[in-house]
Amino acid sequence: MSLITLLTDFGHGKYVASMKGVILSINPEAKIVDIDHEVSHQNVTEGSFVLASAVNYFPPAIHVAVVDPGVGSSRRPLVVECERGVLVGPDNGLLFPASQVLNRRRAFEITEEEYCLPRVSSTFHGRDIFAPVAGHLSLGVSADSVGAQVTDIVELSFGEFQVSDEEVRGEVLYVDRFGNLVTNVPAESFPSWISVGRVVEMDLGGHHELQVQRSYSAVKSGQPFVTTSSDGFLEIAVNRGSAAKLFQSEQGDLLLFRRPGKG
Amino acid sequence: MSLITLLTDFGHGKYVASMKGVILSINPEAKIVDIDHEVSHQNVTEGSFVLASAVNYFPPAIHVAVVDPGVGSSRRPLVVECERGVLVGPDNGLLFPASQVLNRRRAFEITEEEYCLPRVSSTFHGRDIFAPVAGHLSLGVSADSVGAQVTDIVELSFGEFQVSDEEVRGEVLYVDRFGNLVTNVPAESFPSWISVGRVVEMDLGGHHELQVQRSYSAVKSGQPFVTTSSDGFLEIAVNRGSAAKLFQSEQGDLLLFRRPGKG
Amino acid sequence: MSLITLLTDFGHGKYVASMKGVILSINPEAKIVDIDHEVSHQNVTEGSFVLASAVNYFPPAIHVAVVDPGVGSSRRPLVVECERGVLVGPDNGLLFPASQVLNRRRAFEITEEEYCLPRVSSTFHGRDIFAPVAGHLSLGVSADSVGAQVTDIVELSFGEFQVSDEEVRGEVLYVDRFGNLVTNVPAESFPSWISVGRVVEMDLGGHHELQVQRSYSAVKSGQPFVTTSSDGFLEIAVNRGSAAKLFQSEQGDLLLFRRPGKG
Repeated sequence: MSLITLLTDFGHGKYVASMKGVILSINPEAKIVDIDHEVSHQNVTEGSFVLASAVNYFPPAIHVAVVDPGVGSSRRPLVVECERGVLVGPDNGLLFPASQVLNRRRAFEITEEEYCLPRVSSTFHGRDIFAPVAGHLSLGVSADSVGAQVTDIVELSFGEFQVSDEEVRGEVLYVDRFGNLVTNVPAESFPSWISVGRVVEMDLGGHHELQVQRSYSAVKSGQPFVTTSSDGFLEIAVNRGSAAKLFQSEQGDLLLFRRPGKG
Repeated sequence: MSLITLLTDFGHGKYVASMKGVILSINPEAKIVDIDHEVSHQNVTEGSFVLASAVNYFPPAIHVAVVDPGVGSSRRPLVVECERGVLVGPDNGLLFPASQVLNRRRAFEITEEEYCLPRVSSTFHGRDIFAPVAGHLSLGVSADSVGAQVTDIVELSFGEFQVSDEEVRGEVLYVDRFGNLVTNVPAESFPSWISVGRVVEMDLGGHHELQVQRSYSAVKSGQPFVTTSSDGFLEIAVNRGSAAKLFQSEQGDLLLFRRPGKG
Repeated sequence: MSLITLLTDFGHGKYVASMKGVILSINPEAKIVDIDHEVSHQNVTEGSFVLASAVNYFPPAIHVAVVDPGVGSSRRPLVVECERGVLVGPDNGLLFPASQVLNRRRAFEITEEEYCLPRVSSTFHGRDIFAPVAGHLSLGVSADSVGAQVTDIVELSFGEFQVSDEEVRGEVLYVDRFGNLVTNVPAESFPSWISVGRVVEMDLGGHHELQVQRSYSAVKSGQPFVTTSSDGFLEIAVNRGSAAKLFQSEQGDLLLFRRPGKG
C-alpha cells in the first residue's frame, strides 16, 4: 500500500509540503494524493465529513488526516487499521466516521519513537508524527507496531436528525465551494413526500417552499431546490447560485422540512 | 498513456479527491496532474481557455475537464480523440478549443456503462462518468469503445476580434491571479503600430495611453502597459500591480485599441 | 534525482500546470511535488523563507522556485548545486536561504539554450527556462552543463534581530494561514527569560503581556501566547484565533520583547 492521502486544515503550502518531504524521505516510492487542505480552521466535524466522504472512493490507502486543535496536549496520536485502508491522525473524532466507512478493525496509539521524526515539536505532529508513521506504514510496517492497541477512541457523529411522516429535522453538515448546503440527513431516510417533482416547506432563516429535483438543470437559474447530494445526503442547492448566500446559512445551522399543507 | 490531467471548477477539495480516488481504483499506476480547479463557477469559456492554454505544454495525456452547468440534463458526455492526447468531459464547448490545439480526430458519446461507476448520480458526472472513463482509457481502452461517434460536438469560440490599420477591437478573455487582462487578440494579428516601444490608446472603462513593452521590468512600478501574454495573446498588465483593479475590468469586457494621433 | 518540487507566486492554476507539462514532456518519470503557489505576489522574502523552511524536510531533489519581479530584465537565471539537492530559479535572493540550508556548493548561470524551450518569452521563465532545465537535470544533466559558474549570486537575509539580557528585537517574517506570526528570531538565540511558563512584554501595535507556552492547548481559547514555531523561530500565536488579526500585524512589522518588570 504505497498510496498515501493527506487531509488537513493547513492550506496548500509549506506545512503540507513538509509532510510530503518527510514521507518521501522515508519512502521515495510513495504516491501522495491531496484530499483537502482547506478544511475550516480546527473544524474537526467538517474535516471528518470530508474524510469519510472521500475515502469511500479510494482503493486501499493510508489516509493521514490532521485537524488537531489539541496538538501538544494529552490527546493521543492514532493508527486505525480498517478493512479497506489505514487511518493516521489525532484521536479527536476526526478519523471516526471514515473508520466506519472503511470498516474499522483495530486502533493503536502511536508511541514507538522510531517511526517518528527524531525531534517531535509540540505544534506540528502532522510533520513530526503522522507523516513519518504513514511513510513507515507504506513500507510495510504493520499497524500494530506503532504502539499498544486502544479500544476507546473518540467517537464523533454528524449530529442528530429526525424523520417522521410530517417533518424532517437535521442540520447543515457541510457547505461546499458552490454554496451547496449538505445536511446530515441520509437519502435512505427520506420520507416518501421528499421525492422528485414534489414541493416541500423548509424552515431555514425563514419559511420557504422548495421543489425537490434531481439536478441543477431541472430548475431555472437562481432558483433554490432540494436534492440528494453526490454523497447521498439531503442537500439544498441553487442553480447557478449559492444556497449558503441565499439562505445566509452555514455549517451547524438547524433546519426543518415540512410536508406541504401541514404547516 | 497513463498521464491524466484534471481541470474543474470544484475547488481543491473532496470532489476532486473523489475523482482521483476513482481513477486510482481503476488504474493504480495512473499519474494525475492538476491543471486548475479554481475556474470561476460554471464559467465554460474561462475553463475552455485555461484548458486549451495548458494542454499545449503537455505530452500526450488524457485530459479530464468538468465545468458542467448542464450536468443531469441531456448534454452529452464526450471522449474526444486527438493527435496529441484525449479529452474527456461534457459536450458544452469546454473541450472544443483544446481539441483544436491538440488536433482533433474523432469524438464519441460516452454510453457504455461498464466504463462508468455502477451508480451514476445526477449531479456529479466528474466522479461517476468522466473519472472512471479516463481511468479505463489510461489502461488502454480505446476511445471508440465508450460509445458511438458523434460529429456535431458543441463548438465554442473565444469571441470576435477585429484588427485594422487604425483599430483593434477585442475582449478580455481571462483574468489571471496577478490581475493581468489576457485578451482574445492573438499576437500574430497585431498591426505594426502595436510593437515594443510604441504608445497606443486604449478604451477600457475610460480612455488611456499605454506603452507597448516586452516585460514587466521595462516599466515603472504601478505603471500599466500592453504586452504579449505568455500564451501569445494581447495582454494588459501593470508592473507590481493589477490591471483588473486599475481598470476595474473583468472577463468579457470589450476593449478598443487605437493608433495614436488618430483619435 | 527524479523528484522535482515547485514553489511560485502563480496560484494553483494554468501557469503551474504548464510548468508541469513541460517537465513531464522532458522526463515522463519525474515526480513533481508542490511546495507553495500562494506566496504573496512578487514577495521574494516570503518565498525564500517558505522555500528554505520546506526543503529541509525533503530528500535530495530539484527545487524550482519562481517569484520573479525582474523577469525579462537582466537578472540571471540560476542553477545552484547543493550537497542536499539542486535549486533552480531567478538570481534575486529567492534561492539563497535555501541554498544555505542545503549546503551550497556551486552556482551556474543558465545560458545553454538547448535546455530551455525553443521560444523563451519575456514574461514566463518558469515555463520556458526553469521548468525545462529542471526536467533535464532530473534526467541526469549535470548542473555545470547549463552555463558558466558564477560566484556572486544575490544574497538575501531574513532581516536583523537583536537579543540582549533585557530585550529581543526582530521582525515578522511570515504570516501563515492560521494568522500565526513567525518572526526572524531563531529559537537557539532566545534569552533565558523567554522560556515556557514565563511572561514577557511585547511591543507590537501597542503594549502587551504574553505567556510563553509550548503549545496552543496550553492556553485558553482566544488567548495569545509566545512559542517556538515548528521551524524553530519565535512565534506569536492565538489559540483558536489569529495573532495577525488580534495584533493587526503583517510581514515586515518590527517587534520588541522585553523582560518583564524592566519596562
